Amino acid sequence: MTEGRIFTPRYGRKLDDFEIGATYVHPWEVTVDAGTLALFQGSFLDATPTYASEAFAKKLGFDARPVHPLLLMNLGLSFSVHDVSEQAIAHLAYIDVRFPNACYLGDTLTASSKVLGKKLSSKGDKGVVHVRTVVQNQTGVIVCAFERKALIRTGAVEGRPEDPSSDFEQPGVSDTPSLPAALAAGVDTGGIARRFAGSFSDFEVGDVYCHQVGKTVGESEHMQLTLLMRNSHPIHFDEVYCEEGKSFTGTRVVYGGLVFGFVASLASRDVSGNVLWDLSYDAGAHPAGVVAGDTLFAASKVLAKKDRGDGTGEVTFRLVGVKNTRPDRLLDTGVDLFTPEREKGADARTDRKVFEITRTVLMLDG
Amino acid sequence: MTEGRIFTPRYGRKLDDFEIGATYVHPWEVTVDAGTLALFQGSFLDATPTYASEAFAKKLGFDARPVHPLLLMNLGLSFSVHDVSEQAIAHLAYIDVRFPNACYLGDTLTASSKVLGKKLSSKGDKGVVHVRTVVQNQTGVIVCAFERKALIRTGAVEGRPEDPSSDFEQPGVSDTPSLPAALAAGVDTGGIARRFAGSFSDFEVGDVYCHQVGKTVGESEHMQLTLLMRNSHPIHFDEVYCEEGKSFTGTRVVYGGLVFGFVASLASRDVSGNVLWDLSYDAGAHPAGVVAGDTLFAASKVLAKKDRGDGTGEVTFRLVGVKNTRPDRLLDTGVDLFTPEREKGADARTDRKVFEITRTVLMLDG
Amino acid sequence: MTEGRIFTPRYGRKLDDFEIGATYVHPWEVTVDAGTLALFQGSFLDATPTYASEAFAKKLGFDARPVHPLLLMNLGLSFSVHDVSEQAIAHLAYIDVRFPNACYLGDTLTASSKVLGKKLSSKGDKGVVHVRTVVQNQTGVIVCAFERKALIRTGAVEGRPEDPSSDFEQPGVSDTPSLPAALAAGVDTGGIARRFAGSFSDFEVGDVYCHQVGKTVGESEHMQLTLLMRNSHPIHFDEVYCEEGKSFTGTRVVYGGLVFGFVASLASRDVSGNVLWDLSYDAGAHPAGVVAGDTLFAASKVLAKKDRGDGTGEVTFRLVGVKNTRPDRLLDTGVDLFTPEREKGADARTDRKVFEITRTVLMLDG
Repeated sequence: MTEGRIFTPRYGRKLDDFEIGATYVHPWEVTVDAGTLALFQGSFLDATPTYASEAFAKKLGFDARPVHPLLLMNLGLSFSVHDVSEQAIAHLAYIDVRFPNACYLGDTLTASSKVLGKKLSSKGDKGVVHVRTVVQNQTGVIVCAFERKALIRTGAVEGRPEDPSSDFEQPGVSDTPSLPAALAAGVDTGGIARRFAGSFSDFEVGDVYCHQVGKTVGESEHMQLTLLMRNSHPIHFDEVYCEEGKSFTGTRVVYGGLVFGFVASLASRDVSGNVLWDLSYDAGAHPAGVVAGDTLFAASKVLAKKDRGDGTGEVTFRLVGVKNTRPDRLLDTGVDLFTPEREKGADARTDRKVFEITRTVLMLDG
Repeated sequence: MTEGRIFTPRYGRKLDDFEIGATYVHPWEVTVDAGTLALFQGSFLDATPTYASEAFAKKLGFDARPVHPLLLMNLGLSFSVHDVSEQAIAHLAYIDVRFPNACYLGDTLTASSKVLGKKLSSKGDKGVVHVRTVVQNQTGVIVCAFERKALIRTGAVEGRPEDPSSDFEQPGVSDTPSLPAALAAGVDTGGIARRFAGSFSDFEVGDVYCHQVGKTVGESEHMQLTLLMRNSHPIHFDEVYCEEGKSFTGTRVVYGGLVFGFVASLASRDVSGNVLWDLSYDAGAHPAGVVAGDTLFAASKVLAKKDRGDGTGEVTFRLVGVKNTRPDRLLDTGVDLFTPEREKGADARTDRKVFEITRTVLMLDG
Repeated sequence: MTEGRIFTPRYGRKLDDFEIGATYVHPWEVTVDAGTLALFQGSFLDATPTYASEAFAKKLGFDARPVHPLLLMNLGLSFSVHDVSEQAIAHLAYIDVRFPNACYLGDTLTASSKVLGKKLSSKGDKGVVHVRTVVQNQTGVIVCAFERKALIRTGAVEGRPEDPSSDFEQPGVSDTPSLPAALAAGVDTGGIARRFAGSFSDFEVGDVYCHQVGKTVGESEHMQLTLLMRNSHPIHFDEVYCEEGKSFTGTRVVYGGLVFGFVASLASRDVSGNVLWDLSYDAGAHPAGVVAGDTLFAASKVLAKKDRGDGTGEVTFRLVGVKNTRPDRLLDTGVDLFTPEREKGADARTDRKVFEITRTVLMLDG
C-alpha cells in the first residue's frame, strides 16, 4: 500500500466561510429520550412541574411530559456548532428564544441555521455572525427557534470538508407562537395543585430574588452534557487544545448553554415552581467564562407582569448568574447586577457575572 | 422602575418550624424513568436481578422491572429535604424502611412527611426531629415508606416562603406489607435460574462477609445523583456554602442516601445475587461522613434467617460501610464492626465506619 | 450469637481456574434502555446516524434505533469480567467482533464466554487465556459475538464461590452474519439523505485521517460507564486496590472498552457520518493504559474498500488512538502509527498509542 493523502478535517466556519442568507443543515439527527433528560436533570435541579411530571403535564392537556425547553435550546445550539461556531472565539448573544410546540421523549430532532448577518470588527481580525437556528421534530414541527451571535475570526477554515448538498429551506418563524396548542387555548387551572411557593400574585415589578443555593460545576458532568448535546467545540472537553493557548482560561471552559441551565435551575425553586411554560428568552449574554470547580449562583429581578385572567399570568424576569460569591454579597457591595454588562461603563462592570438574560414565563396564580 | 423588595428565600425547617402531627407535602412531582435508573446503575454495581432485568421480573409476576428500592428511598428522602432537612446538621437514623408495592418506570412520584416527634438536646441549641415519609405513585399507591431522624438547630428559618395550603392526609402505613402482591402470593421458583452464587442455604447465622471490592466516589457522580434525586441541601453541591464553615468536612459531603447505595451495592454480588425483594431496612445510621475521593467498602453479618418453604427464605444481615480501608483489615486489628456505634463505649468506636443498617431480604434457595 | 465463618469472596479466575472448552454463563442479566444509551452518548460524540436516530433507523428497515454496537460489545466484555478477567493483569486482544442482529432498547441481555485456549508464558508465572463471548437477547438472538485474549496470573483464585450449575451451551457463531436482516437484503438508499461529509466514494485506500478534536477523560464519567456496563474489575474504580500496588499506573485505569469507545467516536465525524452498520472489528489491542485526565486523539487509515453496487460499500480502516498529543504531530516526528505495536521492533514503538484495531463498516455512497 503506497502512502496516500493525509487529511486533517476541521469543522465550523471562519468569517469568510459564512454566506449571508445561506442555510446550514446541521448533520446531527438525534432521538431525544429519557436518558438525555436524566443527565439534564442530574445537573439542573429544576422545579418546573410541566417538564418533570407526566401526571402534571397530562392534566395540562399535553400528551406526555414536554422535553424541557432548555434541553431543546441546548440541543439546537450544540447541533449548530459543527457548522457555525466550532471555530468561534465566543458566543455573544441569545435573541428571541421560543418554544412554539411541545417536543416529547422519543421525538427525533434536527436543526438548521440561517445566516442573518455578519459584521467585521473595527480591527478587521474578527467579526460577528448572526444566525437563526430552528429545531424541528421528525414531522417538521418547530419545537425551538432562536437567534444567536458569535465572535468569529476572519479567514476560512482549512480542511473543512464540503457539506453534502441540500435543498432544505428553513421555515419562517415570524408566525411562530410562544405557547404550544395545549396551553394556547387557555388553561383549566381547576385540578392543578400549587406545590411550590411563588405564584403569579406573589411577584411585584421591581422585586429582587437572591437565590441562596449555589452549584459547583463538576468536571465530568459538564463534559458529559456537552457531548450528549452534540456540542463539538474542543474548548469544552479537549485539554490539549486548551493548553495550546486556544482557551482564554488556559483550561476547558464550561459550554455556555450549560451555564444557562445551571443559572436558570438555581432560580427555579423560588420562581419556577408554578411555571407552566417558558414563553421566551431574550437579550442574553455570557459576560465571563466558567470552568469546572466554579460555584454558580443566580439572582432574578421582576421586570414586568401581565394577568391573563384565566388563573395564570405572564411574568418577565431579568435572570443573572454570578460565580464564586452570593448575589446578595455583590448587591451589598454596590454592584449593579441587573443592567446588561454591555450597557455599563467600564468602571461599573463586574467580573463575577457569567450569564444574564430576560426570561418570560407563564405562571399559575395562587 | 423603583427599587423593590429583596428576597433571600431559604427552605427546610429549624426546630421551631416543626409542628408535631403536621404533614408536609413535598413539592417535587417527578416521573421516574430509564434515565433516572441508569445514573443509579452507573454508580451502584447492584446484582439483584429483579431490579435489573425485565425478563427476570416478568417471570416473577411483575409487569416490568420494579424500580430499585434504594432509588425509591433516595427519591423520598431527597424530596423531603426541601421541607424537612435542608437546614439539618445531620441525618441520624433510618427506621422501618419498606417497599410495599412495585413502582415501574414511567410512574410519577410524590412524597409527604409527617412529624412524629421532636426532642430538644440537653444543651438546648439543637434537637432531633422524627418524621415518617411516604412515597406514592400517580394513583396514590404507596411504593416506599420510612421513618428518619435528623439533627436540627433550634430557631426558625428566616425567609422561608409559606407553603401552599393543602388538605392532604398522609395514608397510614401500619397495614403496609413488606412484599408486593406479585411475590406475596408465593413465588414459583421453577423457571428461575440462579445466576450468581450465594442463595438461602449458603448463609448461616453468624457468617461474616468482608466484601473485597471497593468504590471510589467521584465528584461529578455524587453531585449528579444528588440533584437527580432532588436533594436540595447545599452541603452536597455548593462549595461556597461549605467554605463558609457550614460543612463539618470543610468541603462538599456525599449525601447519605448515596453512601447507603454505594455500600449496599458493594455487598451485592456476595449476598444479593439471588435476592428477589428488599423486605426492610432498619436501625440505620451514618457514623462518619464521606467526601469525593473516599473509597468505600462493605461488610455483612448474617443475623437471622427464616425458611419460607417455597424455595425462598428471608435473611437478615447487618450491613456496614467503611472508608479507605478493607473491612477485613479493621477486623484483624480488633475493630468491632457490627455493633452499632451508638451502643459502643467511646474507646470501641471506629472513625472509619460511614454506614450501618439492618437489612432483611427475600432470597431464592439453591 | 457465636462468631461464625468469615468469607472474603473474590471473583474472576486465575490461569488454573480456566478449563479449555468450558462455558461460563455470566450472572448479569440486564435490560438495556434509553438511560444506558444516554450515558454512552454523553461520553462518546458518535456521528453514526443509524444508532442515534429513530427516524433514520426506521427508514433503513429497523424497528427502532439499534443499540450502538460498541455499547453491546462493552456490555458483553464487562459481563464477562466477573467470571473471566476480574483477576487479569491486562486485556490483550479483540478478535472477530461482530454484530449479527439488531438489539433494541428494552431488550434484556445475557452473555456467556467459552474458553478457546490458554497458553503459559515462558516465565511460567502467567499466561494468556483466549475466550469467545456471545451476547444474546431475551429470546436467545445473538446481538454481539467476539473473541478476546487476556493476560492472567497462574494459580487459582482463593475464596471464589462455586458457580451455580448450568447446562447452557454457547451457540456457534460460524454461520453468524455481519449484517442484520434489515440491511442484508440490500439497502434502499433512495430516501436517505447524507447529512455528514465523507461517503464511500470519498475514501481511497492509503488515505490517512488525523482527527483533530481530542477528548479529556473525566474521572466520574469513566467510573460511571464502567459500572453501568457491569465491569467489576476494581482497577477501574477502587483507589485502595490501586494504591496497594495492584495497578501498573499507581491509580485507577480507564477500562479498555471505554478507550475503544472514545477513540472510535473521535474519528466518527470524519469517517462514520454515513455509516449504516459496523460490520466487524478485528486485530485490536491496547498498547498503553489511560487514566483520568488523559486526552485521547484518533487517527484512521483506509486499508480496503469494496463497492456493493447498491449505493453502499464496505470500507476497512485501521483505527488508532493516542494520548496527550495530536496524531499528526506523531506522524511529523516519524512515528509509525498504523503498524500494530506487537509487529514493530522495540525502537519503533510509541508509548503514546493507547488503542489500535481494524474496523470494517457499511457506508452510504455520495
